[in-house]
Amino acid sequence: MPLTPSRTVEELRELRELTGNDDGAQRVAWTDTWAKAKKWLSGKLAGTEVEEETDEAGNQWFTLRGASDRALLIGGHIDSVPNGGWLDGCLNVLAGVEVLRRLAEEGEPPLTVRLVNWADEEGARFGRSLFGSSAAAGSMSDQDELRLRKDADGVTLPDAIAAHGVDLDRALDARKQLENAFAYLELHIEQGPVLESMDLPLGVVLGTFGVERHLITWRGQAAHAGSTPMDTRRDALAGAAKLALEIRPIAAQVGAGAVCTSGGVVTKPGIVTSVVETAEQLLDQRHLDAGSLAELLRLAKGASERFAQEEDLEVEWARIWSIEPILFDAELIDLADESIHEVASTSHRLPSGPLHDAAEVARAGIPTVMLFVQSLRGLSHTKLEDTKPEHLELAVQALDRLAQKVLERERSA
Amino acid sequence: MPLTPSRTVEELRELRELTGNDDGAQRVAWTDTWAKAKKWLSGKLAGTEVEEETDEAGNQWFTLRGASDRALLIGGHIDSVPNGGWLDGCLNVLAGVEVLRRLAEEGEPPLTVRLVNWADEEGARFGRSLFGSSAAAGSMSDQDELRLRKDADGVTLPDAIAAHGVDLDRALDARKQLENAFAYLELHIEQGPVLESMDLPLGVVLGTFGVERHLITWRGQAAHAGSTPMDTRRDALAGAAKLALEIRPIAAQVGAGAVCTSGGVVTKPGIVTSVVETAEQLLDQRHLDAGSLAELLRLAKGASERFAQEEDLEVEWARIWSIEPILFDAELIDLADESIHEVASTSHRLPSGPLHDAAEVARAGIPTVMLFVQSLRGLSHTKLEDTKPEHLELAVQALDRLAQKVLERERSA
Repeated sequence: MPLTPSRTVEELRELRELTGNDDGAQRVAWTDTWAKAKKWLSGKLAGTEVEEETDEAGNQWFTLRGASDRALLIGGHIDSVPNGGWLDGCLNVLAGVEVLRRLAEEGEPPLTVRLVNWADEEGARFGRSLFGSSAAAGSMSDQDELRLRKDADGVTLPDAIAAHGVDLDRALDARKQLENAFAYLELHIEQGPVLESMDLPLGVVLGTFGVERHLITWRGQAAHAGSTPMDTRRDALAGAAKLALEIRPIAAQVGAGAVCTSGGVVTKPGIVTSVVETAEQLLDQRHLDAGSLAELLRLAKGASERFAQEEDLEVEWARIWSIEPILFDAELIDLADESIHEVASTSHRLPSGPLHDAAEVARAGIPTVMLFVQSLRGLSHTKLEDTKPEHLELAVQALDRLAQKVLERERSA
Repeated sequence: MPLTPSRTVEELRELRELTGNDDGAQRVAWTDTWAKAKKWLSGKLAGTEVEEETDEAGNQWFTLRGASDRALLIGGHIDSVPNGGWLDGCLNVLAGVEVLRRLAEEGEPPLTVRLVNWADEEGARFGRSLFGSSAAAGSMSDQDELRLRKDADGVTLPDAIAAHGVDLDRALDARKQLENAFAYLELHIEQGPVLESMDLPLGVVLGTFGVERHLITWRGQAAHAGSTPMDTRRDALAGAAKLALEIRPIAAQVGAGAVCTSGGVVTKPGIVTSVVETAEQLLDQRHLDAGSLAELLRLAKGASERFAQEEDLEVEWARIWSIEPILFDAELIDLADESIHEVASTSHRLPSGPLHDAAEVARAGIPTVMLFVQSLRGLSHTKLEDTKPEHLELAVQALDRLAQKVLERERSA
C-alpha cells in the first residue's frame, strides 16, 4: 500500500472517538486516557518492521532500522490540553505513522527512520511544557523545582510520572536518543490565522519566536471615587491602560512579525468606589529576531517609565520567563519549501509564535524544520480547533515528500 | 459649663480606646461593639434634661424638649466600617452631644432640639448603607430584598437587626420622627483632599453628588499571544483601556466638580498567552448637577461605542446603581457659611462626593445642610484617618454657632 493520506484523517477521527468527549480531546499527559492513546498508537504500527521503546523521559519511540544507524527523526505529541482540539499534536504523530508505514513496506531503508511521540508537550497538568523533548535535548534543568510541583488534586509530579514508569532523576538519560539523529521534522497545525488569511494550505516554519514574559506592577494611591478630584489622583489603572495601548505602536515600530500582548490586568482594590491603587499587568512579547525582541522590551520599559512619571505612579518589572528565538535549519527550510510547492503548488515561510518540541531538538543542535498546515479561524486549544480534511491530506503528503528528500540528500552526502 | 470643644476631642479618644483596636475602629452596626458604643453615648447625656428613645429602625434619639414641638435635628452615626477611622460618623454625634449639653444648661429652649445617632450608615455588614436614615426619611423600599441579605457568616439581616430590637417590617414607622423637624444639620470629616489642599479647616457642603454606576462589558476574541498577528486581533482590553483614559478628558469637558472613576477591570481568560476575550469594567461618575451627570454618562457611552467600532469589539452597559444629586438648603448654606467665617475667618463651599445620612433627610423635604472639617491626606475608612485636634474644636464651635443661628431664625420667623 503506497502512502494513503486519507487513512491519517480516518485515524485522527478514530482517536477523537476513543479519547475525547463532548468538551473535546482529553489526552492530558500522565493520565489513563493518555496511556490509552499511546497503546492505541502502538497498534497502528503492529505487524511492520518498526520496533517500539519508551525512553527514560516517557517518550515513545518507533524505529525503522536502516542499514545505517544514522537516523531521521519525525516527531509529535499525542497529549492534549483538557478540552483540547482533535489535531494539536496528534496530527504530527499520525502523519509520521503513515510515513513510517510507507517506508517499512519498501523494505530495509539505507538510513534509520524514527518517529517519536514526545511526553507531555502541553504541560497541562503540572504547568511544565516540553517535558519529554527538553529531557531528550538535555536542556531540562529544573528537576529540583519539578519535584515540588503538584496538580490541582495535590498529586506531585514525581508520583504522577512514576505511575507511567518515569523516574524524574533519570529523565535526562533520554539524551542518548538524539545521538545518531541527522535531522528532525515536525508537522503541526498553525494555531494562528496567517495561512487561512492568505488562502494557503501549508507553510514552512522559519523558527520559533523568542519570548519575553513580564509581570508589571503599577502602584498609585487608593482614593474615594466621590471625594477625590480628578487632578489629585494617582490611578494605577491609567499606567496599565496606557501601556496596553502603547505596545501596539511599539510592535509596529519594531516591524513585521513582532507581537506584544497584555493578556490580563488585575486591579486592587478593584471596587467601584475607589481609584485603583495597584494594577498588575501581564506582558508577553515575541519576535523571531533576538535584537528585535530586545528592542520590543526596551521600548516597552521606556514607555512604562514615561507613563509612571506622567501619572505619578511607581512601576516595577519582574521577568516571568524568557527564551531566545530558535531558528530552524536553512537547508531543511529550502527542502520543506520544495516539498510544499510540489504538493500544493504554492508555499509560504512564516515564524511560529507558539513553542514546539522542535525548538528543543533544534536547541540540541539537530538540524530541524517544521511544516504548518492551515488552522480554520486560527483556533486551537479548544474543541472548535479544525482543519479541512483535504488540507490534512496535503500535509501528510508534504511531510512524506520532505522525509524522502532529506533521506536522499543524506545518502548522497 | 459653656461649650467646651476640647471635651469632644477627649471623648472621641475615649471612644477609640473603648471600641477600637490596633487595626482601627470596629463599631460595625448590629454588633456587640456597636451596642457598647451606643450605651457609652447614652452616658454622655445622663444627668441632663435630655430624653432618650430608640425608634423602629434602630436610630437612637436624644431630645431636649422645648416650649414648641418644632424641632431642630442634628445627626451623625456612631457605626464604622471594620478597621475604620476614629472620626467618620462619631465626630458628628459627639459634636451634637456638646451642643445639646450647652443648650440643656441654658434651661428649656423655646424650640425642641434633637440629636440622632443613625443606625447603620455604613452598611458594612450587609452592604446596605443609610439604613436608619432611609427608613426615617421614608425612602427605604427594598425590604423584600433586604430580607434575603446575609453577612459573611450567613446570618440574615432580619435576624441580625432583631438581636438589636429592630423588626424590618416596622422600620418605616420611624418616619414619624421627622414630622416636626424644621431643619437638619450634620457635621462630617471631608474624607477628601480639597480643604487640606486649600489650607482651610472648614467648609459648607452644597449637596451630595448624583451618581451613575455601570458595569461595562467588552467582548473580543481570545487568541494565542504568539500566533495571532497584531492587525487581526480583537482585544477586549483595548476597549477598557481607551475608556479608562477617556473618562478624564470627559470629566474635564463637563467641568469642575465632575469625577469619573474606573475602579476596576476584570480580564478573561486573563492569562499571559492569550489576547483578552472579555473585559468587565466598573465605571462610577458623579456630579452635583443632574444635567452634567447625564452629560458625563452620554459622553462615556458615545466614546465606548466609538472604541468598540475602532477595535471590532462588542460593548454592553449595565447600570449597577444610580442616585440623583441632592442639593442642600440655600438659606442654611448661607447660615453655615456665616458660622464658619465667624469661627475660622474664612470658608469654602464644596460638594460632597460620598453620600451621607443628610442626603436622605434632604430627600424627605427637611431643609438640610452639612459642614465639612478638613481630613488629613484625604484618607478615610482606614485607621490612618485623621484631623488636627484644633480643627476638630473649630468644627464643634461652627456646628454650635450654626445651631444657634438656625434656632434664632426659626424663633423670629
